[in-house]
Amino acid sequence: MKPVKVGLLGLGTVGTGVVRIVQGNQEDLSSQVGSPIIIERIAVKSADKPRSIEIDPAKLTTDPWEVIRDPEIDVIVEVMGGVETTKGYILEALERGKHIVTANKDLMALHGAEILAKAQEKQCDVFYEASVAGGIPIIRTLIEGFSSDRIVKIMGIVNGTTNYILTKMSQEGASYADVLKEAQELGYAEADPTSDVEGLDAARKMSILGTLGFRTNVELQDVSVSGISQVSKEDIQFAKRLGYEIKLLGIAESKNDEFSISVQPTMIRASHPIASVNGVYNAVYVYGEAVGETMFYGAGAGEMPTATSVVADLVAVIKNLRLGVNGLKQIVPYKQKKLTGDDHIFYKNFLLLHVDDKAGVLAKITQVFAECDVSLDSVVQQANPNNPDAEIIIVTHNASKASMNKVLQRFEELEVIRRVKSHYRVEG
Amino acid sequence: MKPVKVGLLGLGTVGTGVVRIVQGNQEDLSSQVGSPIIIERIAVKSADKPRSIEIDPAKLTTDPWEVIRDPEIDVIVEVMGGVETTKGYILEALERGKHIVTANKDLMALHGAEILAKAQEKQCDVFYEASVAGGIPIIRTLIEGFSSDRIVKIMGIVNGTTNYILTKMSQEGASYADVLKEAQELGYAEADPTSDVEGLDAARKMSILGTLGFRTNVELQDVSVSGISQVSKEDIQFAKRLGYEIKLLGIAESKNDEFSISVQPTMIRASHPIASVNGVYNAVYVYGEAVGETMFYGAGAGEMPTATSVVADLVAVIKNLRLGVNGLKQIVPYKQKKLTGDDHIFYKNFLLLHVDDKAGVLAKITQVFAECDVSLDSVVQQANPNNPDAEIIIVTHNASKASMNKVLQRFEELEVIRRVKSHYRVEG
Repeated sequence: MKPVKVGLLGLGTVGTGVVRIVQGNQEDLSSQVGSPIIIERIAVKSADKPRSIEIDPAKLTTDPWEVIRDPEIDVIVEVMGGVETTKGYILEALERGKHIVTANKDLMALHGAEILAKAQEKQCDVFYEASVAGGIPIIRTLIEGFSSDRIVKIMGIVNGTTNYILTKMSQEGASYADVLKEAQELGYAEADPTSDVEGLDAARKMSILGTLGFRTNVELQDVSVSGISQVSKEDIQFAKRLGYEIKLLGIAESKNDEFSISVQPTMIRASHPIASVNGVYNAVYVYGEAVGETMFYGAGAGEMPTATSVVADLVAVIKNLRLGVNGLKQIVPYKQKKLTGDDHIFYKNFLLLHVDDKAGVLAKITQVFAECDVSLDSVVQQANPNNPDAEIIIVTHNASKASMNKVLQRFEELEVIRRVKSHYRVEG
Repeated sequence: MKPVKVGLLGLGTVGTGVVRIVQGNQEDLSSQVGSPIIIERIAVKSADKPRSIEIDPAKLTTDPWEVIRDPEIDVIVEVMGGVETTKGYILEALERGKHIVTANKDLMALHGAEILAKAQEKQCDVFYEASVAGGIPIIRTLIEGFSSDRIVKIMGIVNGTTNYILTKMSQEGASYADVLKEAQELGYAEADPTSDVEGLDAARKMSILGTLGFRTNVELQDVSVSGISQVSKEDIQFAKRLGYEIKLLGIAESKNDEFSISVQPTMIRASHPIASVNGVYNAVYVYGEAVGETMFYGAGAGEMPTATSVVADLVAVIKNLRLGVNGLKQIVPYKQKKLTGDDHIFYKNFLLLHVDDKAGVLAKITQVFAECDVSLDSVVQQANPNNPDAEIIIVTHNASKASMNKVLQRFEELEVIRRVKSHYRVEG
């Protein structure tokens, strides 16, 4: 059969992996799709950069439009990153009837709906398995594996950098600043780590998972986000003593026609399967009404794991090409759901308060909880030799986010409270 | 669009779940497939048995042939179990151009190749996600998610009954016999537990996973099997002290044109992700050349988890029906691989020997290892207050199965060894 010709946008880490797999597994791949797969043209930043793979230099161009406009090319594999410019390339490629495989979470989180609508109009495939959780086939799982079920909850460790930092802090008792510096030296964290450590990267991935899991449009701005830069090694030690780990968890929940979605450092019970996901690994825990608890674990980034997902998508596109059914299995969210109000989002909370060390303080504090309708699971008051204030540790029962916000507001007015040192959502 | 009509063979646990999901999620399902799904006829053992779901009695029949021969029916969902008779139903349904969804691991392990060949001939779909690991979409993952990769190793906890027993033995220090009895009372183990506890059920599932993972025909007789009935609570305590858990693991490995596959109680390092899979849960660990370590976790059995996979397959069949591409994506193993010889299967071993308590014994034993080319990682000799013999615990480095067999043979001739109390494969 006629070879399928692929245009590659980007030859960085993931692009190199894609070439490696297509070259190295050519025989295997063509046995599955029924024809050779040829990487016809590659758009690169610099044409004469030394590379770890063998590439015919004639295939390289520094102009992505040359790839997009090449009439020989059937499928565009986009692994260059970027949002606005890249969106232009993708839309034009679709306009020309080319199918898309992308690893670009930013693009899909911000413009997924527009891109998928264009794909549907042009009967093209757009696959993006590699955009979330690298080598873990979680997008397929949500679309196909659980097509029969109603997903109730998704919890994800979907950012390797922050999981690496929290794991090191937990296992070695190191400080956030020290581990971040080490992660930067090892290449696990960017020079500007904001997008990772402030939870933005995780939020983008969660909006994609939420859209697929709940079959409704989840926008990036629906995700309430906080990052890990305020997590202290003392918090992690407190958590451990109570039988918890602290993880940056994306948590998406849906009930009837509502959903909530957030990313925040969370205390997760140590016995929960996701609590032992360590280092740069990712995992997505999915709770379905029928299937119950499931979890999917693997490398969330890296050249070869991410390329595995990209090339698996490429195989799917080419199989559809052979059958003439591209674009016909496109999933478009078909449900109208709205964000759950804060008075209907319930979870447990951990609070560490620094308070005046005098009589009656605890009574005042517990009074606030009572007045805000938040019931308490446990309260411990202790002296801290390094701190002239007393410390009070409180774990609540399930309380609404609205009620907890009221508690925190009241705390600001309460003079006996010096400060709310830590506040975590508690799960598991 | 015209409704799709489904014939159901079996209305036991899983069949009931299938009806529950198709009835309860009808709106969701038809949004995805573009037409209503109607369960048209159901073959049951007893037509007047009380049931927990509402079914029009006119749909029930005690004759499966009535379902197979109904010209209105597009898809047969087989959840009745059984091998030879059931195979007859399936082949006849395919002959009549009906697509198949089955949860039947025994059928697929024993006759999968024949059934898939018939399906290809008749351009019909045969999907069987529910046959392995219940609600975990592992078959899709191996076929599609990792289509781009070469799978090197699969380790599976694919039998919930034995995992429940081993978990209880590990967590409560209970004996095999006591936990088995309890599991039988709770309905987690059959009155005749042989198929589960002797590893046969796991072997069937592993042969299916091996076939898909290595893209070659793995026959049931290729699987070397041993069960858990010889696992003692003392073994589990020994394992724990060394930092291991004992799990009934299916282990399939492939390199170049060879593969090995086995099911046996295995000591797995406690830090390995599969070691903390407890109770009736299942998990499949997959190591791919490119993707590296991944693991997929969930309920391995039960009404709703298994039905989730069955109905997800039904959705896939109906989507293919709409597109007119049934049977065209059938995966047929395309690689010729042969079983690895025992001299090329390598793993670590744990041995517990009861030996004469006298001088020179250890020297004789270590001499045997040396002569068989097995090098040792650790050797501990200890007295056991409950045992007049001395105990020697040996952990080997990686050794070939052939060499270890030689060692065990030589031990039989060695008079100082009273008995080889325990012998485990060690992983992780």
